[in-house]
Amino acid sequence: MSNAKDFARLPGFRDFPPEELGLRSHLFEAWRRVAARYGFQEYDAPPLEPLSLYVEKSGEEIVGQLYNFTDKGGREVSLRPEMTPSLARVLGDRSRSMPKPIRWFSIPQLFRYERQQRGRLREHFQWNVDLVGAAGPEADAEVLAVALDGLRELGLDAHHIRARVSDRRLLAGILGALGVPESSLLAAYGVVDKIEREPRERILQRLTDEVELPREVAEAVAGLFDAPELDAVEARFGQDPAVAPHLASLRSFLEILGDLGFGEYVDFDLTIVRGLAYYTGVVFEIFDRAGEFRAVAGGGRYDRLLELVGGESLPAVGFGMGDVVLSDLLRERGLAPDTSHSVDHFIVTIGDEQASLARRIAASLRGRGRSVVYGVRGQSVRKQFSAASNEGAREVLVLGPDEVSRGVAVVRSMDSGAEREVRISELLGDAVVGA
Amino acid sequence: MSNAKDFARLPGFRDFPPEELGLRSHLFEAWRRVAARYGFQEYDAPPLEPLSLYVEKSGEEIVGQLYNFTDKGGREVSLRPEMTPSLARVLGDRSRSMPKPIRWFSIPQLFRYERQQRGRLREHFQWNVDLVGAAGPEADAEVLAVALDGLRELGLDAHHIRARVSDRRLLAGILGALGVPESSLLAAYGVVDKIEREPRERILQRLTDEVELPREVAEAVAGLFDAPELDAVEARFGQDPAVAPHLASLRSFLEILGDLGFGEYVDFDLTIVRGLAYYTGVVFEIFDRAGEFRAVAGGGRYDRLLELVGGESLPAVGFGMGDVVLSDLLRERGLAPDTSHSVDHFIVTIGDEQASLARRIAASLRGRGRSVVYGVRGQSVRKQFSAASNEGAREVLVLGPDEVSRGVAVVRSMDSGAEREVRISELLGDAVVGA
Repeated sequence: MSNAKDFARLPGFRDFPPEELGLRSHLFEAWRRVAARYGFQEYDAPPLEPLSLYVEKSGEEIVGQLYNFTDKGGREVSLRPEMTPSLARVLGDRSRSMPKPIRWFSIPQLFRYERQQRGRLREHFQWNVDLVGAAGPEADAEVLAVALDGLRELGLDAHHIRARVSDRRLLAGILGALGVPESSLLAAYGVVDKIEREPRERILQRLTDEVELPREVAEAVAGLFDAPELDAVEARFGQDPAVAPHLASLRSFLEILGDLGFGEYVDFDLTIVRGLAYYTGVVFEIFDRAGEFRAVAGGGRYDRLLELVGGESLPAVGFGMGDVVLSDLLRERGLAPDTSHSVDHFIVTIGDEQASLARRIAASLRGRGRSVVYGVRGQSVRKQFSAASNEGAREVLVLGPDEVSRGVAVVRSMDSGAEREVRISELLGDAVVGA
Repeated sequence: MSNAKDFARLPGFRDFPPEELGLRSHLFEAWRRVAARYGFQEYDAPPLEPLSLYVEKSGEEIVGQLYNFTDKGGREVSLRPEMTPSLARVLGDRSRSMPKPIRWFSIPQLFRYERQQRGRLREHFQWNVDLVGAAGPEADAEVLAVALDGLRELGLDAHHIRARVSDRRLLAGILGALGVPESSLLAAYGVVDKIEREPRERILQRLTDEVELPREVAEAVAGLFDAPELDAVEARFGQDPAVAPHLASLRSFLEILGDLGFGEYVDFDLTIVRGLAYYTGVVFEIFDRAGEFRAVAGGGRYDRLLELVGGESLPAVGFGMGDVVLSDLLRERGLAPDTSHSVDHFIVTIGDEQASLARRIAASLRGRGRSVVYGVRGQSVRKQFSAASNEGAREVLVLGPDEVSRGVAVVRSMDSGAEREVRISELLGDAVVGA
């Protein structure tokens, strides 16, 4: 006989029994509703793709993190670690003939072969929203509004969450003004990204050693984040022609988010740069205000990515929002929905003579969209009521010989215990029954 | 620069741009609605599982058809080719403490590494519905009713489709009565499964050579299907104690399906045995009546499967319904829905002065659940109307300087061209606007 352990699910993967799937569906439905309100259309692509699709975008070093393998046809393939390359591939075939901007979203399951740690999974679901073919702060704001509205739809308001936003062009202009050469920008972003989490001395050391900045430039860069408010940045750099247009654009972005109802959710934060190399403008990350969790979502503008994987050169802005941190946050804040099972009606039969009638009533009610379960033949009435309770039935319809002979059934509300009689012809007919 | 061909999707996999995803969502939503009406709850499990989960159930020969590989941790793994082993694994952990019967469904994407042929994909989505912990014709009928109701919900009625049903215990009893030894039953099922598609002589040859039946037994078996109606079978074998109880059970199964409203959909058909070894009772396949397509769905009772993969020994009945044949059938019968994109409102601004107002109106309408897109700043009015048409807008709200100064917007129906004025305070407020 086989060993049950051989059948255990793989490390880093989740089963979704109904009580877990209920929360997942709650997220997916909210995401789909909100995306539709902003005119976004859903797409999907295969969970397995050519490995080259990811290597081209992210370099060979990405392979170490991928769930990749050689398939039986000798192809180098990978479970998808992110959706953007597939989006670029699908758009590449068709974007030239499509009206712009293109508003698309997807909810893929994504995979990484990461070292196992507590809370680090090898798969998660991610809401991917992209607006392609439009540049400018309106498009940036529209996409961040979708992300924030998706969270608001789930009950998270400006007291629970905030978006930290910046713009790489703005940061580049400021760093340039401070003496950071353009060739060092990406390395400097990497240090700025850690500025909250590492001590000043360590930051200075990384700026001089890794980014190879002179000590006084390194100190100026590190000092920048002592007064990170937008007004302070403007007062200091607002006259610099490499900074001014990006400041104006960011102000416009924030103003539009205000119009869209999300002013309270958004904070300017120059330390937000995002890890990935391909962002070219606005960048943002959404966190819980209490700072207990990792980022709930992140995104930004990536104007040169699509052409990298063979597509048309199109400006684009998008975000990804994972299900794992968000589910934890909703549970922690008491915002996870009640996912316990329920049905509208459970039909109890006193004797097997009513079994056929019970089924015909079930068919009729189901035809009107109701959820109906009936007792298993031969089960005692007590056991059937217990089953009705297990099914979370709102109402029990009792079919007994006396009532049936009078053409009625007894309907008992499982909440109140109140009983009433309903005509069987009504249960079988077109008139709507019950509450 | 990279070669776009390297990024092409893998053979046998599908992209789902929005117009394709629309049909897929249409299926999934119908499946979920119908499953809920019968009290079934959705679950899911990982798309990647230990290879042993499938080998244990189906034997080493299954490996040739699987999308399996060795992962970076040296584990033998496989993309899931079917859902039942995962179901058994998830239930194995918890079924003992759950009230029976258990009604669960899932819509997994499944994978097989099959040789590439026209119309043969390496992935598909499958509606999997299982009722676990109940034996008997009520449970069998309930599950087939879910399958048929799922198709009816999509517009396929008894004129379009039919379920061909049989029972392996019945066939076993009849074959036994004809002289087939029990040890030859599985081999005989394999020949019966092909009886429609192969000439009588070939069937006879296979029954004598492969199943090793004496010539007269082979002829009796082949002749059985000359008069395959249930009444004929009953007249001939109804007194045989190895046949009679299974005939009664099948009659009851058909009667229950009649009560549930599916009598017209169901035909008794002794040639239906299903390919898989693990079925133990009722078996069924659903086809289009015209016989143009492969099976739309198939299933049956499998009372010994769950314990095979380490679970509790529980009677179970279930089916799988794939998305590929069903989508083709719906398209062919004109039942695929219109999946063209549409939004409720498109907001046109005459000048940039109205841009902020347009966004505030959009936010207000979206807050009431409407889908709203607005024009890109600086676009001509003509281009904005063209964009409204591309978005499939039902109504265009036009914000012009004169109207705005009077506190109104012009609402144009894109269907009728009719225009009316609406107060902007209404668009921004709580009152519901539009149709």
